[in-house]
This record gives sequence, structure tokens and C-alpha cells, in this order.
Amino acid sequence: MNTFGRLFKTQVFGESHGPFIGVVVDGCCPGIPLLEEDFLADLGRRRAGAKGTTPRKEEDIPQITSGVYQGHTTGAPLCIVFANKNVRSGDYAHLASTPRPGHADLVANRRFGGFNDPRGGGHFSGRLTLALVAAGVVAKKMLGNVHIRAQLIEAGGTTDIERAIDDALKEGDSIGGIVECRANNVPVGWGEPFFDAAESVISHLAFAVPAIKGVEFGSGFSAASMKGSLHNDPIVDKTGKTASNNAGGITGGLTNGNELVFRVAVKPTSSIAKKQRSINTKTNTMETLEIKGRHDACIALRVPVVIEAITAMALADLMLLFNAPKGTHTRPRG
Amino acid sequence: MNTFGRLFKTQVFGESHGPFIGVVVDGCCPGIPLLEEDFLADLGRRRAGAKGTTPRKEEDIPQITSGVYQGHTTGAPLCIVFANKNVRSGDYAHLASTPRPGHADLVANRRFGGFNDPRGGGHFSGRLTLALVAAGVVAKKMLGNVHIRAQLIEAGGTTDIERAIDDALKEGDSIGGIVECRANNVPVGWGEPFFDAAESVISHLAFAVPAIKGVEFGSGFSAASMKGSLHNDPIVDKTGKTASNNAGGITGGLTNGNELVFRVAVKPTSSIAKKQRSINTKTNTMETLEIKGRHDACIALRVPVVIEAITAMALADLMLLFNAPKGTHTRPRG
Amino acid sequence: MNTFGRLFKTQVFGESHGPFIGVVVDGCCPGIPLLEEDFLADLGRRRAGAKGTTPRKEEDIPQITSGVYQGHTTGAPLCIVFANKNVRSGDYAHLASTPRPGHADLVANRRFGGFNDPRGGGHFSGRLTLALVAAGVVAKKMLGNVHIRAQLIEAGGTTDIERAIDDALKEGDSIGGIVECRANNVPVGWGEPFFDAAESVISHLAFAVPAIKGVEFGSGFSAASMKGSLHNDPIVDKTGKTASNNAGGITGGLTNGNELVFRVAVKPTSSIAKKQRSINTKTNTMETLEIKGRHDACIALRVPVVIEAITAMALADLMLLFNAPKGTHTRPRG
Amino acid sequence: MNTFGRLFKTQVFGESHGPFIGVVVDGCCPGIPLLEEDFLADLGRRRAGAKGTTPRKEEDIPQITSGVYQGHTTGAPLCIVFANKNVRSGDYAHLASTPRPGHADLVANRRFGGFNDPRGGGHFSGRLTLALVAAGVVAKKMLGNVHIRAQLIEAGGTTDIERAIDDALKEGDSIGGIVECRANNVPVGWGEPFFDAAESVISHLAFAVPAIKGVEFGSGFSAASMKGSLHNDPIVDKTGKTASNNAGGITGGLTNGNELVFRVAVKPTSSIAKKQRSINTKTNTMETLEIKGRHDACIALRVPVVIEAITAMALADLMLLFNAPKGTHTRPRG
Repeated sequence: MNTFGRLFKTQVFGESHGPFIGVVVDGCCPGIPLLEEDFLADLGRRRAGAKGTTPRKEEDIPQITSGVYQGHTTGAPLCIVFANKNVRSGDYAHLASTPRPGHADLVANRRFGGFNDPRGGGHFSGRLTLALVAAGVVAKKMLGNVHIRAQLIEAGGTTDIERAIDDALKEGDSIGGIVECRANNVPVGWGEPFFDAAESVISHLAFAVPAIKGVEFGSGFSAASMKGSLHNDPIVDKTGKTASNNAGGITGGLTNGNELVFRVAVKPTSSIAKKQRSINTKTNTMETLEIKGRHDACIALRVPVVIEAITAMALADLMLLFNAPKGTHTRPRG
Repeated sequence: MNTFGRLFKTQVFGESHGPFIGVVVDGCCPGIPLLEEDFLADLGRRRAGAKGTTPRKEEDIPQITSGVYQGHTTGAPLCIVFANKNVRSGDYAHLASTPRPGHADLVANRRFGGFNDPRGGGHFSGRLTLALVAAGVVAKKMLGNVHIRAQLIEAGGTTDIERAIDDALKEGDSIGGIVECRANNVPVGWGEPFFDAAESVISHLAFAVPAIKGVEFGSGFSAASMKGSLHNDPIVDKTGKTASNNAGGITGGLTNGNELVFRVAVKPTSSIAKKQRSINTKTNTMETLEIKGRHDACIALRVPVVIEAITAMALADLMLLFNAPKGTHTRPRG
Repeated sequence: MNTFGRLFKTQVFGESHGPFIGVVVDGCCPGIPLLEEDFLADLGRRRAGAKGTTPRKEEDIPQITSGVYQGHTTGAPLCIVFANKNVRSGDYAHLASTPRPGHADLVANRRFGGFNDPRGGGHFSGRLTLALVAAGVVAKKMLGNVHIRAQLIEAGGTTDIERAIDDALKEGDSIGGIVECRANNVPVGWGEPFFDAAESVISHLAFAVPAIKGVEFGSGFSAASMKGSLHNDPIVDKTGKTASNNAGGITGGLTNGNELVFRVAVKPTSSIAKKQRSINTKTNTMETLEIKGRHDACIALRVPVVIEAITAMALADLMLLFNAPKGTHTRPRG
Repeated sequence: MNTFGRLFKTQVFGESHGPFIGVVVDGCCPGIPLLEEDFLADLGRRRAGAKGTTPRKEEDIPQITSGVYQGHTTGAPLCIVFANKNVRSGDYAHLASTPRPGHADLVANRRFGGFNDPRGGGHFSGRLTLALVAAGVVAKKMLGNVHIRAQLIEAGGTTDIERAIDDALKEGDSIGGIVECRANNVPVGWGEPFFDAAESVISHLAFAVPAIKGVEFGSGFSAASMKGSLHNDPIVDKTGKTASNNAGGITGGLTNGNELVFRVAVKPTSSIAKKQRSINTKTNTMETLEIKGRHDACIALRVPVVIEAITAMALADLMLLFNAPKGTHTRPRG
């Protein structure tokens, strides 16, 4: 469903071409300084504008409608909304009968009996990641000195990312990429056996981001071809610091005090200028499809701040779960 | 926490060397034929015995303690327990102060204030996957003619898996592997926007399985270096069948009616016969550690049936979520 | 937390004197006709205006910001917001140090470390019931021909409700009341053992409504003084129809096909014109408190539509839970 | 479903005449001393034996199967099971077609398509309260010096409870009663707006107990006929102590530091020796029904310890929710 988190709960709502996109964050600590300006830096990083991103530019001005009083969070739910302004719905009208390859058009139609909002992908739109970025800003504030940073480390199979984008633009095509995220100062012990392993919670949220098709922690898929004697990270002090970090900072599903490291695979943008073939579901014949609209040649360029956001959301939830059972009985054993 | 699922809920409990491992499955449909024999085939596939697996052999006899009457599920919670019989706790006594690299020993100690059961990894043990396999058997029955099959497709970086295991055994070392899972006959539309994408639910459960460090769907990480014109799967009929399957059977987080395909990376078993270095947390000096116990040279050999189980659990939950809103109003639009 | 429901999820947000009150409803079936006008009748029943209700009048105009397309629900989350317009915050400024008896002022301050919004009760305000009424309108539409009707059957200890209100107004005092709710056409079998008994879900939501201090089903507290031979409702046909209805339409936590009947006790409005004594938490001395503001002499007058709303929310959730496990295996046993 | 609690999670399983009744408690703090003996006092208070209780006597010996190591909770899930020994299923065989008035026989049959276990009420049996009492023992330990005590204050409409029971036994009938529960030393601020009001959580669990048909806090239903000037509890010191306690220790859904007081209405036992009329669902004719089995003339006698248990479960969950957001930011505002 459209809500996630045991204690730091995020509820998203909105459609690409509806009046508003928004998010309700429930479970935020009271007393955190929070102003609308605090969202602008991360929203700016998600926004289009650079080469390879969509010409649809939105100002993305956040409005906090609840949960803040005199510049601080109150402990009540925060609601943050964004008006959709730059909407050109006409672009999508002819797609109703010819579903775009790689998009949710067909499955959404089937799932919702034809009542889904098809404009710009409706509720399935990547524009919903606005809500994640907003929730991430709040989560980052909750996390205090945990520092999270994601970046695009490869696109179109190369680290010369600019050239790869140029090539794709020339061809009217799109490219994917790999985003790596690192978090520092995460304490030992966040994560919950058995089903709230830190990897489980992070990957759950990562795969909610449209276009993500793979997640790996530490050595990830490379671990499959390593020997245990190499993969095991030697523990070198009693705080749990390790000499290597094949585990990516997570052991047994719990953070181990080392840097948290994971990577996500971003598929190439599904909407491309190039002509494609798809079925016309009304006539049941194959047609040539030309997607007009305004799209990203490399959506992966805009993904890092979204991945930071979901990482912060995951860690904030795990932090609260970690805090909860600190009762009178939780004296460390001698 | 130790429970997962919105409607098909699985609660696991138990420790490696405690009296019982078990699972409660809540949300099972009534009227499904279910006997203790039905668990034996999958339990057998998980069990040790083959070359490269641990010499600790357990009979793993399931006992259904509730939820079945006259050979059929009743709709009330199923509880299935397994007695732990072949326990040699002495092997683990000396590890209290010198945490094993790659294991949860240190993080679990810190998280639970020293009260965690350290014997054989306690609640963090891979033995808990027994509970998952049992839940998976029930889920598979719920799913009817959805057919799920996982297999080890690579170990130690090669498809000559037997040789890789021989090499590892000779060296007193361990190897990882890649398990691929495929599910057929999954209908269109299972999965929930925004946070219960089919990938989210499957990966959440996959990362709950000890030793899993990566998950990818369809082309997965390869997608990052593909062009959109190649990655987009052309839709070739109105049921949503596609000519290729780079999406791995999931579009927009919903199953698209094609084969569901994903792979997981299994790290090499952390327990190895080879000597390793680790910190003695009491003396704060590095020590040489020799892990006795009985272990798997390639735990990935036993993982496929566990991955099938978590896939079935995820799909059963998504199926029920799909069924729920079929109300009087859910008439497909003309 | 501020979200409720397993499948029909309601998330509320907002404060009495903040910019907006709102609600996100997640889990609504697609294809339900829904316009902003559909909310007006129930909102009107909740609104002030009658004798005995507060002179603070709000227009309470709902804005649907997501989840509706071309006049029908899409299956994506509905967000409905209400602007707060008629706000006079000055009335509440002096209450910061002298908490009002019967109100959450003191406990909210303690719980949220002084960061809660104190204006008009902030997030604890009865104005949040707007969100419930809106969610209730959606739930009622989901329920089709289930008919729910609540009414005030007693106030100030009498059924001559008008006179009781007159008396209270004259004295600058307030009165409580009893609201009875009846639902017809509820099918047999809604409710979930063990922890989602129909009574559990309804009472959970009823006690979320400010001022509710008691809930009883069927004969309720009278049952405590009845004999079993009288209290047992004789079953008179195979659909489960009973000759009496001491059970209030719920047996074993499941609806039994008879009329659902329950009553809630509404305490007298805490804000009264009469002078009261309370502690000044800064000086630690008792003070005389005079509550200005605009308040209801009998808040119970406005409660029936709120109780209908929470009943509809509860039943919608139970209906979806009832639908979910209708799988291929759920053939009734011969 | 059969699980409850956001952080202190209780999952129950079992049937009256199946092999085991049990409970899994997830979210227990580590380091709490816990032995099987610790359960005996509360189990003894629930057990039959006194006049007015069923002649079916069970030893009710708890077995802790997980979550305890060296006499302390580990932080992993606790599973506690009870073998059902004193089972006489024959008594129930003839009830399949003639549902007992006041029992779940008919609704359970309809809900679960005829697959429910009918013996002794199956999963709907009051015997499941064993699981609640066990969870309650754990919860009480978590709560430290919060002291909870429930007692039967009225039965069959009188405080001369012994006489009322004698009368009922003579007539082969049964009586209901009222149980009052009080909890001391509950701190200020437990409970969560909007949907986890302390009253909501307690009543949710109370109505999960078979036979409970009403719940009221503080003055409860009497509040409906009180004036606000009387009902408002004057706050007399800055800790929130009040001169009266009409609120029953809860204001705005949060505990207010005063004694927590609530009452539940227990209906008369549905199984009575007296002959009753009910429909034969196969022949569709009314029949005379004589319930043999072994039953309680006044089940309310055994309810107090169950109500204590659910109160402890509710408070333990709210305590953990209260602890969670104590982050670096939660400095009380000057």
C-alpha cells in the first residue's frame, strides 16, 4: 500500500497531473527545527534542468500544512504538499489504447479496472519521488549526525557519464546507471531480526522508486564469486570496526558500525523519442508508437537524492525501533 | 520485527540451539488440504547431506500444532514447530569474547545488551530458514497453479559448481553463489503501489534470509548499461505478453503476466575451517580464531528452496491484497 | 499513531488552528463515483450552528487533491483537505501555563516536550473529526447497501434533550450524552478472530473520537445483570437471524447478520463558560480559570455523524479483510 | 487478524481441542528475568476450580520454547505453549447442525466455509485467553513498577456474588458480571494521538476477550448525564494530579498520571444447562438444544486476570511507543 514504516511512517499520495503531490510523515520527533526552506536543496538536486533530464521543469515549492509550530516539529503528523503546475495532459491522450513498453500503463489499467489516472503515469509517475525526497529531508534531520551521500557512479555502462548522455540524446534513446549510497556514523545495532534486517528495509524502499531493478550491499553480487576467507571482514577493535567492508556495514541484518554502502541499478528511462512497437489493445494489432511528452534521457541523474531520501527514511525507522525497548530492564550484562 | 506480511502474515521464533524453531502463519485460506507430509519434500531440499553442506544433520520433522482440522486448513493461524535435536553447544562456548568475522556475534551482543543466545548464532542462525520453508509450503498451496522454481546457477564464480566446492573443501574455505528464481502463471496486477511493489516485497523477504547480499530483477544490474530501446520489452498481445523479459515480469511494481525472474547473491559461508584473525573484546587484542562446529562450505546449495519459499510468501500476500478490493464497485470500465 | 486500518487505511493530519485539516484514505476500491459534493451532507451534520453548538462556524469545504479521475476513485490514495479559516488564536494564548481541566493541554505538553501546537487543542482538537467524517463518506460508498444511522438518544441524563441544553446554556455549563448507532444489511462473518473482532475495531475507532468514554454493544452493560437463558439470542433461521438482539449483531467477534447496534457515552464538553480552578504550572499555585473561546454546550449533538463515520471505516476494513481470502480453495464444505 | 501491537506484538494460535494453545510475544526487552514458574500465579487465577467455574480442569503448564536464555529474555521472540490435555470432544459432535445460541458456531461456519474446527468452539474458545494471560505476565514484567489489579465487582446484578452464583447453578443458568481494572504508577503521556489513544488500545484488546460486551473509562456511561463543571477533574499540581478522577486517568487519549480505571461488562456464559431452542440448519426446523459439555456458570469469575493481562499488553505497547522518539532532538522546550 502507500504507507511504509513501523514508527517513522510515510504515506504518499498524488498523481503526475493531478492538483497536488504530497506526503504525510507520522512519527517525527517533536522539537526539530523545520522550515520550508530546509527542503529546497534536496528538491533542487532532484529537479530537472541538467543535460539529460526532462524539459518539464517544476518549481516544486513545498508547503507544510501541518505538524510544525513556531518553526519546530510538534510530534503530530507532518503533511507536505506540492502543487503540480507545469502539466500538459494532451501529450498522453493517445496512449490509452497503446500501452507504452516499460511503463505501467497496461498493468495499471488491468489492476484498477480502467479507472486509474493515465495522465503522465498517474500515481505510478516518477514525480511521486518528490514525496520521498520531502520525507527524506525530515528523516535526515531526525538522524542528526548520520551523514548520507549518494552519487551516480556509472551510466550507460561507462564512468564517462557526460559522453554516454550525449550519445543517447543523439539517438533519441535513453540510458540507465548505477547509484552508490554511503552512510557514515550509523551506530552499531540498527536493524531488527528477522524481517526488518537493515538490508530488507532499505531494499523495500529502494524498489519503491520507479526504475530501480537491482540492489546490492557491500560486495553484493561480487560476493558470490569470493571465498569466505576473503569476504569475511576481520574485526579489528572492540567497537566492531573491520579492516575491509565486504559486508557494506551490515552483519546479520544489523548495522555494524562501519560505513553503510549499497548500490542500486537504474534501468534506462522507458520513455524514449525513438519509435517503438506495441500492441493496440483495442484493435489487437501491433502499432508504431511515438512518445511525445518531455522525458529524461538518463533518469539516473536525478536518482541519487531519492536514494539518499529512502536511506534516511529506512534508518530513521530503524533508529526509532532501536530506541523503543530501552526500558529499565535493558542493563547490559556485566 | 519477526513478523511479515499484510494479509499472509508469518511470525518466526526460535534459536539454533533452543528447544524449538517454529512459525505461525496467519491469514491462510480455509479449506486447503494440509498434512505434515506435505512439508517433507521442501524440507528435504533445504536439509544438509550433500557434499559442501554441514555434517549437522537434523531430521526436521514438522509438527502442526494448530490451524488444521480433519486434514484441511481452518482459516485460524497455523503453527508449525520443529524440535532441535542434534545440538552440540559446547562448540560455541569460546566464541563469546572473540566474535566470528562475518557473523552477527558482535552486533547481536551490542544490540541485546549481552542477553542474546550466542549458541550457534541463536535467533540469527540460518536454521531459522526452516521456518521460512514451512511457511513457503503453505504459501505455495495457497497459490494454486503458480509454479515457482529456484536453482543455484553459479557458485564460486563458475557454473562448474561441483569443482568449485571441491576446491573450497580442500582449502578449508567456503564459496558463495547466485540463485535464480522463476515463477510462472503469475497473473497480471499483483503488487501494490507505492510501497508494496512486487520487487519491494520479494527483496524485503530475500534479505531476511541470512547470507543474501544482492537482489536483481530481470536484467537487473545489466540494465544499467543498456539503452532504453533495447531494455523496453515490446508488448505483443493484449494480455501484456512481451517479446523479451528485461523487466523480469514486473512493471511499475506490478506483475505483468510474464515470467517472474530474479536472482540473489549469496555470500560465502562465514564459518570456515581456516584460521582467521579477530579481536578479543575482553583483552582488546587480536587473536587467531579457529571455528570448530559443523558448517557448510557452500551454503548457497541449500538456499534455492528458501528463495522459493520467500517468493511464495510474497506472492501469497500480494494475491490476497489483490483479491481484497473486489467489491461491488470494481466493474471494469467499459 | 495517526493511521488506522489493515486494508482501508486512514491517515489524519492537521491542527485546529493550522492551515489545513486533512485525511488520506488508502485502500479505496477503484471505480466509485466520488465528487466533492458527496461530502457536504455529512459535513453539514457535523457542523455547528444548532443551539448548543459552538458559534465558531466553518464552511468546511472539502478539496479532493488526489485519487479521483473523471469523477471516479482510481484505486490510488485519496487525499481530502479542509482549509481552516475561522481561526481566533488569541483566545488560547493565556492557557499555556494554566492547563484546562478535562483537556489534553497538560499531557500533550509533557508528551511532546512543549513543542505541541497549543492553539485550540492543536492536533488533539475535536476539529480533527472533520477528517473522520470525510473518510466515513468514502467508506459508506464502499459499503454499498449497508445502511448506518447514529443518533443522540439521551443528553444530560434525559431524553428531553432540548430542555437539557437550555439548562446547561443558562448555567454556562455543558452536558454529555449517549449516541446509538445501528447498521443494517451487514452480512454474516465480518470480523477477524482473535484481535480484529468487530467490537475491537469499532471501539478502537470510537475511542479515537474526543470525548467518548464508553462503548457497549447490544445489551452492553445491562448484560452483566442478565441470565444466560435470557441473554442468548435464539437463532430462528439458517441465515442466522435471531429472535432477540442482545448480542448487538456480533457473535464471537463476527457480524451475525442481524442489526449491528452499539452505543457510546459522550462526556460533557470540557470547555465551559463557568469559572474553574486549575494549577498554574509555572507558579505552582491554584488559579481561577475562565475559558473564553467558542465552545459547544453539548458536543454530543455533533457526534452522531462522526460515529457513523467510524462505523463505516471499521466495516469497510472488515469487508476487505473478508474478501481477501476468497481464493480457489475457499469452496464451502459440502 | 491474530496479532496485535505496534511494538509489543502478540500472536496467538491454537484451538480448544487441538494439541496446543500458544502465544508468540515479539518486542520484549532483553534482560528480563523469566522462568516458567513466573506464569503460574496468573495462570492459577484464570484456572477453573472455584464454585461457578467449569469442572474441566487443565494443569495449564507453560513451556517457553524460545526467547529465553540462562533465565533472561534475549530480545528474540518468546513462544509459550500449553498442551491441551483434558479434552472430551465427543460432547460437541451433535452441535454441528444445531448452532448454540450466543456462540460463534454459525458465524464461524459461514466465515470459514465449514472448515473451522468446531470442537469446543475451536479457535473461538475462551481457552485462548490462556495465551493472553501468558502474554500479560511478560508485559507486566516489562512494565516494572506499574501495578495492575482487576476484580469482579458485581455479578448477576448484585455485589453478593456468591449468592448470585448459587442461584444460577440451581437454575442451570448462567450470569454475567462487571470487572473493574485499576493501574497505578502509569506515567504521564502514554498513548498516541490520533488512533492509538490509550482507551482505543485497551478497548481493542478487551473486546478480543470472549464475552466482553462493554468497556467504559472513569465515569464512563455515567459521564453522559453529568455536567461539565462536575465531570472536569481539577488539576491540583504541576505533575497533573487531579482532585477527582472522572477521566479514569486518561485525557486526550494519553495517560495523565492519575490512576487508570476502567470497567468491562461480561455477558453471562452462553453455554447453559437449561434447554434452549435453536434452528437445525440442515432440516431448517427449530429444535430443543441441550448443551452437555462442562461450563462456567459465571465466566466473569475468571476474567479479572485476563483483563489485567490485556491492560498490561496495551500499556507495554504504549510504553515502547513512548520511548521510541526520545532522540537527540527531544529536549523539552524551556
